[in-house]
Amino acid sequence: MRIALGVEYDGRAFAGWQTQPHGNTVQDALERAIASVAGETVGTVAAGRTDAGVHALMQVTHFDTAANRPLTAWVRGVNAFLPQGVAVLWAREVEDTFHARFSAFSRSYSYFLLTHPVRPAMLSGKIGWYHQPLDVAAMRDAARVLTGRHDFSSFRAAECQARSPVKNLERLSISEEAGVLRFDLCADAFLHHMVRNIVGALLYVGKGALNSADLAALLAARDRTRAPPTFMPDGLYLTGVGYPQEYALPASADPGRLMLWR
Amino acid sequence: MRIALGVEYDGRAFAGWQTQPHGNTVQDALERAIASVAGETVGTVAAGRTDAGVHALMQVTHFDTAANRPLTAWVRGVNAFLPQGVAVLWAREVEDTFHARFSAFSRSYSYFLLTHPVRPAMLSGKIGWYHQPLDVAAMRDAARVLTGRHDFSSFRAAECQARSPVKNLERLSISEEAGVLRFDLCADAFLHHMVRNIVGALLYVGKGALNSADLAALLAARDRTRAPPTFMPDGLYLTGVGYPQEYALPASADPGRLMLWR
Repeated sequence: MRIALGVEYDGRAFAGWQTQPHGNTVQDALERAIASVAGETVGTVAAGRTDAGVHALMQVTHFDTAANRPLTAWVRGVNAFLPQGVAVLWAREVEDTFHARFSAFSRSYSYFLLTHPVRPAMLSGKIGWYHQPLDVAAMRDAARVLTGRHDFSSFRAAECQARSPVKNLERLSISEEAGVLRFDLCADAFLHHMVRNIVGALLYVGKGALNSADLAALLAARDRTRAPPTFMPDGLYLTGVGYPQEYALPASADPGRLMLWR
Repeated sequence: MRIALGVEYDGRAFAGWQTQPHGNTVQDALERAIASVAGETVGTVAAGRTDAGVHALMQVTHFDTAANRPLTAWVRGVNAFLPQGVAVLWAREVEDTFHARFSAFSRSYSYFLLTHPVRPAMLSGKIGWYHQPLDVAAMRDAARVLTGRHDFSSFRAAECQARSPVKNLERLSISEEAGVLRFDLCADAFLHHMVRNIVGALLYVGKGALNSADLAALLAARDRTRAPPTFMPDGLYLTGVGYPQEYALPASADPGRLMLWR
């Protein structure tokens, strides 16, 4: 049978999602824990292969197993074998047609950015940082240039393995509260480093080094070498994955697990 | 001259505030960084000696130095020598009558507690956890028993070095949002483990194991051995220290540095 899991993790505690020979990735930790409960080796597939340092409030993964266990075993049982910094939030039995990566029609990410003269200490690794205030109105204007269906080659890492650079960026909104900027993005799929490259470019807009017209030209150029550098992973969170309703999976992250201070 | 500093730190990154032979405490890291800027050895004094795992959004410390540096050197310069997980927020020159510990007339702490079937992953070490919902109304009722001037011996760690167990708990409020409980406490001073022992006792009230009358009897008994166990440090934050206005120090933590998600 096929089991889908919702998984939360602190990207700082692991060397990214995808399995590595050193075994220090989220996928490695999760597959070891699932194997302990299943009594057999399992392979997992994730909706999005997050990089080192990138967090997930709601990653979705699936695996096939011959082991017949109650759903609570795939949550509480697996969590008992997982290290700090990663936890299974929910488990559902799904049809064999479900695929964590290929069934997903959208991914949502949020980026949190502290603008303050002093770097974050308490939230070190959990929030991006820029040492000065940014022009949020200019950033919002520029963000409009990027929304919609575009060739995002200018925001694509050289090592990106996606078949096409054309993605539909359905949402790119920026909110601000008490010196913390929050970027919310939703697209059918994201290229490698696309969110961090977009945030990096919008940061240049916010500090006055680029304007909306520059950003439009950059997008049209389809040339990564002309774009501002990739921004730090620290403030980046995978917050949800969209699937067809027929699979009846939990829609997004539980707000109680996201909120901490204000 | 005497310099006062506001300091923020992630308690998980250090073995508590107070200097230790192994050198892995906040005080050790801070004194090394200050010495690098001052060009001489310095000793620091803090308002509250937080335990291992306890965070500070606004610790206040002072030191004496013969080095004449602009205030920015005591912030940006010291931060350049500090490791991740600790940062100086502000620096002020203060009169020699100022003492970070003895001039303080109040300390404020907050405790954040996630109530959810699954332990926190993203906020591992940053938030306390209980696996079931709690009766917050009962906890608020019981909290009233503890506010005011009392002998808090029932909530005092055996190793506490305070001269008197009598403290004035000016505030103990509990708020809730999306399954996260927030306890805000303010007192003239706190005994060792006092906040974690109070939260531990209120947790027993919230799950129905104690009621307000039990808590009143526990307080009156002045006997630590009769009280519920000390709760985990993970969700505990020193948020501010009160000093006489004449010293003109920043009042409390900057909300932009506290807020992350919701």
